[in-house]
Amino acid sequence: MAAKEERWRELAEVKRELAERDWFPATSGNLSIKVSDGPLTFLVTASGKDKRKETDEDFLLIDEYGKPAETGHSLKPSAETLLHTYLYQKTDAGCCLHVHTVNNNVISELYGDEKQITFQGQEMIKALGLWEENASVTVPIIDNPAHIPALAENFAHHAAAGSGAVLIRNHGITAWGRTAFEAKRVLEAYEFLFSCHLKLLSLRPQLVK
Amino acid sequence: MAAKEERWRELAEVKRELAERDWFPATSGNLSIKVSDGPLTFLVTASGKDKRKETDEDFLLIDEYGKPAETGHSLKPSAETLLHTYLYQKTDAGCCLHVHTVNNNVISELYGDEKQITFQGQEMIKALGLWEENASVTVPIIDNPAHIPALAENFAHHAAAGSGAVLIRNHGITAWGRTAFEAKRVLEAYEFLFSCHLKLLSLRPQLVK
Amino acid sequence: MAAKEERWRELAEVKRELAERDWFPATSGNLSIKVSDGPLTFLVTASGKDKRKETDEDFLLIDEYGKPAETGHSLKPSAETLLHTYLYQKTDAGCCLHVHTVNNNVISELYGDEKQITFQGQEMIKALGLWEENASVTVPIIDNPAHIPALAENFAHHAAAGSGAVLIRNHGITAWGRTAFEAKRVLEAYEFLFSCHLKLLSLRPQLVK
Amino acid sequence: MAAKEERWRELAEVKRELAERDWFPATSGNLSIKVSDGPLTFLVTASGKDKRKETDEDFLLIDEYGKPAETGHSLKPSAETLLHTYLYQKTDAGCCLHVHTVNNNVISELYGDEKQITFQGQEMIKALGLWEENASVTVPIIDNPAHIPALAENFAHHAAAGSGAVLIRNHGITAWGRTAFEAKRVLEAYEFLFSCHLKLLSLRPQLVK
Repeated sequence: MAAKEERWRELAEVKRELAERDWFPATSGNLSIKVSDGPLTFLVTASGKDKRKETDEDFLLIDEYGKPAETGHSLKPSAETLLHTYLYQKTDAGCCLHVHTVNNNVISELYGDEKQITFQGQEMIKALGLWEENASVTVPIIDNPAHIPALAENFAHHAAAGSGAVLIRNHGITAWGRTAFEAKRVLEAYEFLFSCHLKLLSLRPQLVK
Repeated sequence: MAAKEERWRELAEVKRELAERDWFPATSGNLSIKVSDGPLTFLVTASGKDKRKETDEDFLLIDEYGKPAETGHSLKPSAETLLHTYLYQKTDAGCCLHVHTVNNNVISELYGDEKQITFQGQEMIKALGLWEENASVTVPIIDNPAHIPALAENFAHHAAAGSGAVLIRNHGITAWGRTAFEAKRVLEAYEFLFSCHLKLLSLRPQLVK
Repeated sequence: MAAKEERWRELAEVKRELAERDWFPATSGNLSIKVSDGPLTFLVTASGKDKRKETDEDFLLIDEYGKPAETGHSLKPSAETLLHTYLYQKTDAGCCLHVHTVNNNVISELYGDEKQITFQGQEMIKALGLWEENASVTVPIIDNPAHIPALAENFAHHAAAGSGAVLIRNHGITAWGRTAFEAKRVLEAYEFLFSCHLKLLSLRPQLVK
Repeated sequence: MAAKEERWRELAEVKRELAERDWFPATSGNLSIKVSDGPLTFLVTASGKDKRKETDEDFLLIDEYGKPAETGHSLKPSAETLLHTYLYQKTDAGCCLHVHTVNNNVISELYGDEKQITFQGQEMIKALGLWEENASVTVPIIDNPAHIPALAENFAHHAAAGSGAVLIRNHGITAWGRTAFEAKRVLEAYEFLFSCHLKLLSLRPQLVK
């Protein structure tokens, strides 16, 4: 199967699973997966589509400058394609998932002023590749300027390493990994950590590190 | 495909998705979609049906006076058809979705005395077509008289523009758009904003603008 | 289709939907549907089965004394069949649904000492057949003796009218109606009212009537 | 059907159901089922797999020393296979389910210092085989050393009887039973008890025994 078809299949599978969890409310969210290096090309979700549906117009191929790499269609890439472009230019990420969930939005507002949130001691942190005892992980929280290039700049500062995540205040999370499998694991791990944190916070605020 | 069949298919698809989210508890909720102008006709959900099921009696055609436009069936239109009729008479809405969810009921009671709730600064507001920085949106909350004509009058005051929403206290939300796609996006956006608001309120009341 | 087969199909459909909502945790819950009067026979869920599965051993026919009405099988009726028997003996109920949900358990404990909870002014109350302005409805909450005959006696005191519900403290709800359609509507309406009540209680305790 | 194939089918069915509940976030969780005694062999989930998917590489056969019992494949057993091995060596358990849910993680942290949590008076306790009036049940909560052998030792202290459960702080629950059916019932019962407890705690802390 050609690389593009294989990556399309992988991204469609991740999209299906995230849609089953209802993680694309009101057509929000955007996903991408790298197809080639030298030159960089990647598939990104088409703008404004209902991501609970599956069609052969779900994704379009983008070049290293963030522009459509193929003609003969009228699809527009997601408005936030620039963030994905910067990520692939700066790291060896292979897949990037941006979703709006209630929990990631609430966490991003609660800790927006601190500009980050740290988790420590949860077993789930191993899913992020950190295996030592009492490991901790910190997620940066950036502001959400309406002007996408400004947002992309903010994001690019924190885009390092092949896997990771950045919260965008009152907006959502962008999580990435070297493969679709890793990106989905990273996203699921953080959403789990956010859910536990919020539930603990609602019960025993002082317990939350 | 004739307009009526096409609109039936679109409304059935929206109904299916909202049913998957369990947004029709106890046969509550009613949906409609415009079929024609001059004269106005629209399809509306039949009264008392279990909206988790799909049958060819799910909807019936209604005329500009809110009455069944076709004979040969014993279906009754939803008790709240008058609200849909006024909406199509007053605006260029093309689809109207009324659902009862726990979150929209709780929001409508919490802010019922203020008669409105305002959201500001959330990325999700873009799904309502408001793209400027720190945009805000206000949802009116109307009382819920048992007498439907009185309810419809209350609602009609706020029915303006091709898309929007009105909360009905301790009852539910009515959201609309020019198309089924837009109406569903508007409904999903507001339900997301309600969920975030309630979760933030339960954690840091002072944070909620 | 003979009455027994038709009722079996209706009860299986309700069971499927309640299972989709995960309302049968740890094989809990029991359902029944009347098949005949004079003499009374009804179908009830077999004891200890995983109600998320569908087999031809899901239900068995019970007689007016609460005993298996047919031989040739080794199925045991649910341990709480006596409650269903009393209900059909005392009222014109046609279907009875008993489920354990987190919300009905929490409501039953929170208001267990008051022995009842009242809801007023919610639109959802119309689903219980009460259409007047600001209608109210009260659900009795009975204790949960381990001895089933004692539990059934407690329950029978409150089993009146063709539709209704009784909460059993730290146990669950039993809701009924003249048909499977009505019983499911009654159950869904109460579960919705419980969910709204608990969410409001967690946000503005004083708001909860 | 050979014992191994039958046990594989049973474990796959349980895995499918737990996946539907989204109880394997970020590839977490591990499941096993005993295939033979004298010598002990059991099937365990392969490490790092996405447990929402079903493949013929989901499980592998393990011997009494916790090592792969068959060659010709490159599958690695779950990192926590040692816990399952100890359980089958020490008790007559037949199936062991380890999952990370938000509620079991939050309970394990809230009561981690007390090293246990006790439930009393809930009907759901009958699903754990305790039928007397006002029965109570206590779940031990052990610490979560990163070193698996140390974790397995902690766990083994509490692994007694054919069915039961142990919470691992900020990690998850391990629940077991003599069969897949019993193990799933035990797991579902505890997750239900945790959910009720947390909701009651958030509403009326003093009510929670």
